[in-house]
Amino acid sequence: MFRPLMPFEEAKRVIAEQLKPEAIGAEEILLLDAYNRVLKENVVSSLDIPPFSRSTVDGFAVQAEATFGAEENHPVRLSVCGVVSIGELPKIRIGKGEAAEIVTGAPVPAGADAVVKMEDTDRKDGELRVYRAVTKDGNVMKKGSDIRRGETVLEAGQVLGASEIGVLAALGLTTAKVFTIPVVAVLSTGGEVTEPGRELPAGKIYDINAYSLCTAVRESGGKPLYLGVVPDDEAELRRALNNALVSADMVLTSGGVSVGPHDLTPQILNSLGKPGVFVNGIAVKPGKPTTVARVGKKPVFALPGHPTSALLQFHLLARPVVQVMSGRTATEVKSVRALAAARMFSAKGRRTFIMVKLKRGLSKGFVAEPVETGASGAITTLAKADGFVEVPANQQFIDAGEEVSVGILKGAL
Amino acid sequence: MFRPLMPFEEAKRVIAEQLKPEAIGAEEILLLDAYNRVLKENVVSSLDIPPFSRSTVDGFAVQAEATFGAEENHPVRLSVCGVVSIGELPKIRIGKGEAAEIVTGAPVPAGADAVVKMEDTDRKDGELRVYRAVTKDGNVMKKGSDIRRGETVLEAGQVLGASEIGVLAALGLTTAKVFTIPVVAVLSTGGEVTEPGRELPAGKIYDINAYSLCTAVRESGGKPLYLGVVPDDEAELRRALNNALVSADMVLTSGGVSVGPHDLTPQILNSLGKPGVFVNGIAVKPGKPTTVARVGKKPVFALPGHPTSALLQFHLLARPVVQVMSGRTATEVKSVRALAAARMFSAKGRRTFIMVKLKRGLSKGFVAEPVETGASGAITTLAKADGFVEVPANQQFIDAGEEVSVGILKGAL
Repeated sequence: MFRPLMPFEEAKRVIAEQLKPEAIGAEEILLLDAYNRVLKENVVSSLDIPPFSRSTVDGFAVQAEATFGAEENHPVRLSVCGVVSIGELPKIRIGKGEAAEIVTGAPVPAGADAVVKMEDTDRKDGELRVYRAVTKDGNVMKKGSDIRRGETVLEAGQVLGASEIGVLAALGLTTAKVFTIPVVAVLSTGGEVTEPGRELPAGKIYDINAYSLCTAVRESGGKPLYLGVVPDDEAELRRALNNALVSADMVLTSGGVSVGPHDLTPQILNSLGKPGVFVNGIAVKPGKPTTVARVGKKPVFALPGHPTSALLQFHLLARPVVQVMSGRTATEVKSVRALAAARMFSAKGRRTFIMVKLKRGLSKGFVAEPVETGASGAITTLAKADGFVEVPANQQFIDAGEEVSVGILKGAL
Repeated sequence: MFRPLMPFEEAKRVIAEQLKPEAIGAEEILLLDAYNRVLKENVVSSLDIPPFSRSTVDGFAVQAEATFGAEENHPVRLSVCGVVSIGELPKIRIGKGEAAEIVTGAPVPAGADAVVKMEDTDRKDGELRVYRAVTKDGNVMKKGSDIRRGETVLEAGQVLGASEIGVLAALGLTTAKVFTIPVVAVLSTGGEVTEPGRELPAGKIYDINAYSLCTAVRESGGKPLYLGVVPDDEAELRRALNNALVSADMVLTSGGVSVGPHDLTPQILNSLGKPGVFVNGIAVKPGKPTTVARVGKKPVFALPGHPTSALLQFHLLARPVVQVMSGRTATEVKSVRALAAARMFSAKGRRTFIMVKLKRGLSKGFVAEPVETGASGAITTLAKADGFVEVPANQQFIDAGEEVSVGILKGAL
């Protein structure tokens, strides 16, 4: 029952080629709910900002020319013709030799083209002495100088954080057109697992994957649809997958449904729609049984049953697809440099990922310490591993003390 | 009207001392909604995991002793007495000289203490030939070997990601006890601003701060309560602050409410409860008018009106408070190393923060390019700045080409 395994890099290439993921749609949402969402379209300002010339200081609005020649010992004298209030258009007009009191942010009144700072003046009765000349537009933020009407302020694809949402508010907007969050159905299979929250039948263990993968989907910008554990039966799995494909934009399964040594998932996926399965087994450790299909437009990743393998292969292969479907740029798993704490071997002929825990090294920097996997605890590994070190298929091992790149699976370091 | 400004470091110290923030409470939530939440208590396993000894391979459950001496050319012969199904407790018992077919993950039947790999066997009729000896516990993951009942699996304060939520699922849990998310009321003041979504009155600009600060609160682990722009009036501000203090766990305001040159916010805060204002003006640029108070147990930060200053001071001073109130560890603003693209001056006697944009340098690494602030556009600065460079109060400038640390204000780089 030999099945040739696809090399890891080829699997990545074939997945990109066969899935050609795209953003799934757009929606208009409240700006206050738009944190971490992705802009669907360029945003063009419909306003000049500021919409009027504003003073940038507390002082007196004047005609700059009237202050020419003013010096410490030779003040220019102007008459104060009024006060400009903040938040309303001034009704006064500044003539030659006149000045109006003004605060920071208030509109510069008609006639004036500069503002003298309060500290460069001295007021006596109705007379204002100006001790320092100001040039045209001095201390004035001119209408449209921040943003011109018609200017593109933010671009499609930008992720909305505090600054971007502030910028949209500045334009008077309360909503934003963003990419829709793709719904990713997550289900677990396997006769040995049962759903958390139920009584644990003798001989079974609790399913981990549906919970960890739902969370990983959320972390990647998708919306998980938890479908729990599917009974270990061909008809049930067919029904569950069909359901998942109808309800979601993408499907993740983990574990296998076996009759004897065969996993039924690929054959059921092939029967549900074209083009069906195009990756069925990858020369990678852990994660060999990973299967990838497309049913109509919808990507399906059938991940291994081992919790760490499932989460790892999700990050390596499925996460970029979720990102692109969310309108984001697919990003590589974040990585940090570290020194290998022990020799790490590759599995013969397979790209090998060694789960590691990061510790602070003696000097600055990290040390990557392998965490037991496989035979040992699924949960222990999941709880302890911060990330993984990759050993190429054609390399026998990475030696202790070598510098390695550690791909990070946990959000926080 | 000289007001001595508090040095920046002293302000930070006084804030920590006066506020002594604490997590505000706990709640039980669905595990599927617990992404990025913080555990309130240690989690102790109520199960042995696995709850029974499991096979880690496909093969035959045996008594190890019966295989001793088995070799490639000298197989041991056993009789197959049954098949162990996955997901149920086996009813058979393995006697000396017997073997039962078993798959990965299935419970090891009574009597057996090891599993021989399928590939090390050969089956003919009812007879099994074993070509390789297996030691006691070989290919068996023993009951409780992953997690022992009573073992602490996760600790209070851990942030829940995909791995942690997977671990909790493994224990059969569907809920988690997490710290409550603090509600942070956000309001803007100032006669020159109006709320986005309304018509823009002549002489006003749209408020940015309530939107950007609400988003920054969310990013910091808090739940923002948007209270919009408060009319420029003492009674209105008093009412709004009172409201905010009743409805939220913490309050952020920005801008000032002035009668003449005086900002009324501090005096109103002092009238609302003890101990009132304890920081009123900081020797920092930008952000000098920053005011910090505590009214009863609730922290209040009155931030500057300039959008970039408000966001910067939020990150420097208020964000750690939101983090601690969320049960998180207060973290410093993330930073990256970069080369200064231009000389950056400090403001006389004040800790100075220069807003910068990060660009990729010629070699690897970043270059920090100053973004105009102050007189120039509030929005331009907000849109362009990735972070800030700090110039100490006692240093005149940082020179072009010097290596600097850039504090990151934007989530994405």
